[in-house]
Amino acid sequence: MELNSLRDLYIAELRDLYDAENRIIKALPKMAEAANSPDLRNAFEEHLEQTRGHVNRLEQVFEKLDETAKGQKCKGIIGIIDEAEDLMDEDASPAVCDAALIASAQRVEHYEIAAYGTVRTFARRLGYEDQARLLAQTLQEEGATDKKLTSLAESYINESAKTAR
Amino acid sequence: MELNSLRDLYIAELRDLYDAENRIIKALPKMAEAANSPDLRNAFEEHLEQTRGHVNRLEQVFEKLDETAKGQKCKGIIGIIDEAEDLMDEDASPAVCDAALIASAQRVEHYEIAAYGTVRTFARRLGYEDQARLLAQTLQEEGATDKKLTSLAESYINESAKTAR
Repeated sequence: MELNSLRDLYIAELRDLYDAENRIIKALPKMAEAANSPDLRNAFEEHLEQTRGHVNRLEQVFEKLDETAKGQKCKGIIGIIDEAEDLMDEDASPAVCDAALIASAQRVEHYEIAAYGTVRTFARRLGYEDQARLLAQTLQEEGATDKKLTSLAESYINESAKTAR
Repeated sequence: MELNSLRDLYIAELRDLYDAENRIIKALPKMAEAANSPDLRNAFEEHLEQTRGHVNRLEQVFEKLDETAKGQKCKGIIGIIDEAEDLMDEDASPAVCDAALIASAQRVEHYEIAAYGTVRTFARRLGYEDQARLLAQTLQEEGATDKKLTSLAESYINESAKTAR
């Protein structure tokens, strides 16, 4: 891979995200299954649907660029998901398991918030306004998911985990 | 590792962060050296100093908990740093290299924003107000570093990368 221009880097970052989103699509059903709280399970299931839309938006961006929609191994998300799976394998009480799932999911969301913020800025700099709008929509949805997870963490889930001592 | 209580999970998360911060201390000098813009190099060097303070705060938290300050292999940060090193190895023009370094650094910051947000919430739930305050200070500094990187990305660095095409 040669990175001679901002466009090259932009495409490399989009491929990183395309791989990340596809790995998240595989991880979310396992996280939903591991969730004990119905609200948390619903949040993961809704986010799975949303994530399929994010993949579709990335495919639209690749098409506009006349580039193949393909992923490039995203080591960041691999590490974060691996860590989440390790936590799911631990012997945890149900409420503590849910708190751990939220902690992992927020790391995933923040990886994406950083990465979509980057590609949106690059798209703007390159004058690709329509692509920047598509990426900004996804960025907004990732931010909203993160906020939803925070409010789940701050409400009854942690309260239950606390009393599970 | 058994996760029977929120306190167990809190300590596990603190150990993940302690390992992450120590890995970041090793990565930042390489990122500073790879930076072409003096402003970006300064930002990495300042953040290195700040990161040493974050390690110190975590040690204070462990002491308050009467727990050993030790890390637990943080696969998330390992993946993110690995990805940053791959990008640094690429054949990139100076301005594009700086844009890539900022993109990597923002992923690191967001991992930490998610993780410190989690432990601060847990500390509050557990009634450890003084620990929550220490963790909130670091969270605030990670957020400020992320904003600084965004303004560097939005200013001349990307402008130069664009014209490097």
